[in-house]
Amino acid sequence: MHKVLRELKVELGERSYPIIIGQGLLGSFDLTPWVAGQQVMIVTNDTVGPLYLEKVKGCFPGKAIEVVTLPDGEQFKDWQTLNLIFDALLEKRHTRKTTLVALGGGVVGDMAGFAAACYQRGVPFIQVPTTLLSQVDSSVGGKTGINHPLGKNMIGAFHQPQAVLIDTNSLQTLPEREVSAGLAEVIKYGLIRDESFLAWLEDSMESLLRLDAEALGEAIYRSCVCKAEVVALDEREGGLRAILNLGHTFGHAIETFAGYGNWLHGEAVGTGMMMAADLSVREGLISADDRARAVALIRRARLPEWAPSGMTSEDFMNLMSVDKKNVDGRLRLVLLKAIGDAFITENASADNIRDTLRAFLPQAG
Amino acid sequence: MHKVLRELKVELGERSYPIIIGQGLLGSFDLTPWVAGQQVMIVTNDTVGPLYLEKVKGCFPGKAIEVVTLPDGEQFKDWQTLNLIFDALLEKRHTRKTTLVALGGGVVGDMAGFAAACYQRGVPFIQVPTTLLSQVDSSVGGKTGINHPLGKNMIGAFHQPQAVLIDTNSLQTLPEREVSAGLAEVIKYGLIRDESFLAWLEDSMESLLRLDAEALGEAIYRSCVCKAEVVALDEREGGLRAILNLGHTFGHAIETFAGYGNWLHGEAVGTGMMMAADLSVREGLISADDRARAVALIRRARLPEWAPSGMTSEDFMNLMSVDKKNVDGRLRLVLLKAIGDAFITENASADNIRDTLRAFLPQAG
Repeated sequence: MHKVLRELKVELGERSYPIIIGQGLLGSFDLTPWVAGQQVMIVTNDTVGPLYLEKVKGCFPGKAIEVVTLPDGEQFKDWQTLNLIFDALLEKRHTRKTTLVALGGGVVGDMAGFAAACYQRGVPFIQVPTTLLSQVDSSVGGKTGINHPLGKNMIGAFHQPQAVLIDTNSLQTLPEREVSAGLAEVIKYGLIRDESFLAWLEDSMESLLRLDAEALGEAIYRSCVCKAEVVALDEREGGLRAILNLGHTFGHAIETFAGYGNWLHGEAVGTGMMMAADLSVREGLISADDRARAVALIRRARLPEWAPSGMTSEDFMNLMSVDKKNVDGRLRLVLLKAIGDAFITENASADNIRDTLRAFLPQAG
Repeated sequence: MHKVLRELKVELGERSYPIIIGQGLLGSFDLTPWVAGQQVMIVTNDTVGPLYLEKVKGCFPGKAIEVVTLPDGEQFKDWQTLNLIFDALLEKRHTRKTTLVALGGGVVGDMAGFAAACYQRGVPFIQVPTTLLSQVDSSVGGKTGINHPLGKNMIGAFHQPQAVLIDTNSLQTLPEREVSAGLAEVIKYGLIRDESFLAWLEDSMESLLRLDAEALGEAIYRSCVCKAEVVALDEREGGLRAILNLGHTFGHAIETFAGYGNWLHGEAVGTGMMMAADLSVREGLISADDRARAVALIRRARLPEWAPSGMTSEDFMNLMSVDKKNVDGRLRLVLLKAIGDAFITENASADNIRDTLRAFLPQAG
């Protein structure tokens, strides 16, 4: 009926949880061992719900299941939409023994997770991510939250799921842009921590773009292992974990400028990683060949290589200065000292930063 | 210049924090040892701000201080008002090294604490409670949150402060109703866990109502010690901590029925504790004399002894069933097995509950 391909455990002491990766899991894999009470609230959106909601209900035999369906899109990752979850929980009288289930991509996961973190000061939740990006990124690590008009993910909480269930079949219907956006984060793990994984990606990129299930399963597994290792070492982002933000400071500025929802998160991170590699060359950390290797792989994943039309260096500087990875006003960036070895610095030269920004503005192309 | 009267430490491992109680602390006690970065955001309201804001700024020499002033009242403990704090933090570009300071009563403390719990997934905060209720209750234990139209404190987080600073001078200007509301929670500690403290309160009630500083200091200190002990034993409300909710299940129903802000929280808890004592007699747990002792002390604190005009038993039952202390639909209550010894039960008889509700409806008076 279904096939479990791989399983890993994110080690976080009493908050440890499993990630189960397989084919055909939705509808037949029994998730009730991770449900403490009788009440389940599935949170999904109006794109994913029609495809998988009925199947996922089959993962909770014997439980009282309610559903709340959100509008689809990053532009709805706000308080008004979050409140739809609280309204449903309170109208259906869900107690603090309820379990929330996030069925969808990163936005649904972030919002359902944040709702779980805040509802009655914290209830359990389970992640069922259905996009490549959420499978390799937002379903691991416990980050949850919503956007504010002045900045992305500015309001949120750390809240770990009880379990994460990943069905590779859900990727077969994923739009091409979203596959590319997910591959940006997959490539990131190779760049920051695992040169051999990057080499495997260089060999496997055509299979991944063809949506070959075996290749996708391996890419998801290795990405989750990498992220789980980093998160287990640094759950609250005191230091090491920040390397997971390679490309994100530039990327968040791009997303904010473009308006949430116009660029996919992974697309902005793809461009942002090219910018980080570029700045790493200017800082004398890696060679021009290393940069070319990173840029070529990101390009092969069909990711954009220029900032959005109309964006200026000043836009970047203004938007990057509110990024939450800054400390006391200094610009904090993740750079590469080699392919497969990222680090955090507050010492990048202002001139080099400005040159990198200029090199990626559309008019410079 | 100032006088530290008493100090205690809430023991929570790496989240332990001090409570400093004294006279004249605002304006001269140096709080910078509990501020990690350079940025401070004081959150206050339009009643307390004019009285104490300039003084409190003096507690943070050398720091960059910003202020956000909220409208005063429980009816503003909602998302819209919470967002004023996020707006200010983002407009002033506060990073994750900022420190929030809650200056005011329980509402300001709950909202500033919840904003600190959520801003950039968690920043530090300091409590400077200025009402008796917040000094003995909401400043200890890490509960933060906001209300939802369908229930009180339904959205929130556990987030411990770095430190709590209590200046007994701030009580000299407190409205009489708010003194009584605070005394309700003070009496609660005697009822649930400390008969000798209850006896001391019986001896000291006249001094407390006269706002005698020595008596107030002692009452605050013993209340904080009691609550800190309970919280240290059970930080996340798995069991024991729930005894702190004596009178709260009835009380929350009263507050919700009356509309937030019309009854003070402590007033509703006062009536709720009388109801809990009454139900404890009907359940055969305490004597009618014990009930009379509890009711007499609560009355002497000038607290209301009937439910709001127009409230029915059915209103109580409907509003109590969404209380978050229920598990899987059963009504969970805190009752007394003696003066100074509370416990949690889901087994109170429906008939006895109904008789208690009837006994406190206004038409029954």
